[in-house]
Amino acid sequence: MSDVLKQLGEVLEQRKSAAPDSSYVASLHAKGLNKILEKVGEEATETILAAKDAKLSGDNSELVYETADLWFHSLVALSHLGEKPEAVLNELARRFDLSGLEEKASRADK
Amino acid sequence: MSDVLKQLGEVLEQRKSAAPDSSYVASLHAKGLNKILEKVGEEATETILAAKDAKLSGDNSELVYETADLWFHSLVALSHLGEKPEAVLNELARRFDLSGLEEKASRADK
Amino acid sequence: MSDVLKQLGEVLEQRKSAAPDSSYVASLHAKGLNKILEKVGEEATETILAAKDAKLSGDNSELVYETADLWFHSLVALSHLGEKPEAVLNELARRFDLSGLEEKASRADK
Amino acid sequence: MSDVLKQLGEVLEQRKSAAPDSSYVASLHAKGLNKILEKVGEEATETILAAKDAKLSGDNSELVYETADLWFHSLVALSHLGEKPEAVLNELARRFDLSGLEEKASRADK
Repeated sequence: MSDVLKQLGEVLEQRKSAAPDSSYVASLHAKGLNKILEKVGEEATETILAAKDAKLSGDNSELVYETADLWFHSLVALSHLGEKPEAVLNELARRFDLSGLEEKASRADK
Repeated sequence: MSDVLKQLGEVLEQRKSAAPDSSYVASLHAKGLNKILEKVGEEATETILAAKDAKLSGDNSELVYETADLWFHSLVALSHLGEKPEAVLNELARRFDLSGLEEKASRADK
Repeated sequence: MSDVLKQLGEVLEQRKSAAPDSSYVASLHAKGLNKILEKVGEEATETILAAKDAKLSGDNSELVYETADLWFHSLVALSHLGEKPEAVLNELARRFDLSGLEEKASRADK
Repeated sequence: MSDVLKQLGEVLEQRKSAAPDSSYVASLHAKGLNKILEKVGEEATETILAAKDAKLSGDNSELVYETADLWFHSLVALSHLGEKPEAVLNELARRFDLSGLEEKASRADK
């Protein structure tokens, strides 16, 4: 699981500078920040609706799908403003006192 | 960076079954799914506002903080319904044809 | 201004029972509550983005347009579940101790 | 029902210029646009959750309450940026070809 977000960050970086009609991500960047943030809002709503439905049905597949959509579009927003997924992971690691990238690297040095 | 989300999933799992007044996560589970989803909606709005402000100021720190909050609360929602962070990462890996947990494990077998 | 919402409620009532392809409102009802609520979430996000942009530009036209969209879709949700605009207005009148429909009618009786 | 929103607009106008600790509305204006828009996002989420619950329970009272909260906070946002409820009603009247304030006034002139 480990490097999925790092790899996704690299994919997003490549598509950011690609021709607008070459990919969905490139087209989002061309449309601008508001369009990207509208997608973040849409996916948050769809995640909330999927969670309510999952509670009733016991089937989480739509919820997982929509949460992935939400994370993905929030990463496109971060990419649009020059940030990588690592920034979010480092913040989570800091907050929960988890061993993250920097710590592991420094331990590997020893 | 690799195992931050896996470790966070384990922290969330422990706190899910803890006494309601022992931690913020435990209190959210005790209040129920609606309260958790209200937080997802709140953090999505705060992420959107932070992105608009970051575009103007050039300072992404609040945006990173709010995105971490958004991911965190969406993981609490998943945990409430019995899912782990790996489910989201596997969906992202599948969608973008990235090498994820399963694939790496199977390659390690060879 | 007075009867705009009452008239709109009547329009929404008529379109609720119309053929799905006869109007946008009819198509929303046919798609179901989740689709209507997704629109409420979308329009809330667009209202928020328009307000941020209006603060900078001094031009409120987009904000007014998006707020109308938000109210409209929340009225479609209420209509889907059997409520009229009057229910929201009565709640606001009650909360702010304003003279609303019932009060004026009773005064007219005297 | 007619003048509820007009009266509410006048209440909001008065409280906008009041001391920050004199009312909830005054405190929102003092905290600024982001705080007001966070409330719009929160109330949109609570409206969506209440609609999902109302569909199951058949009880719309929470949905009506949350929709009133959503409209109220969107009116505070409009007030913060110098607009009145009439602007939204005129937009809805224009869009649905309803007879609104201006039209009735002009007819009254004849």
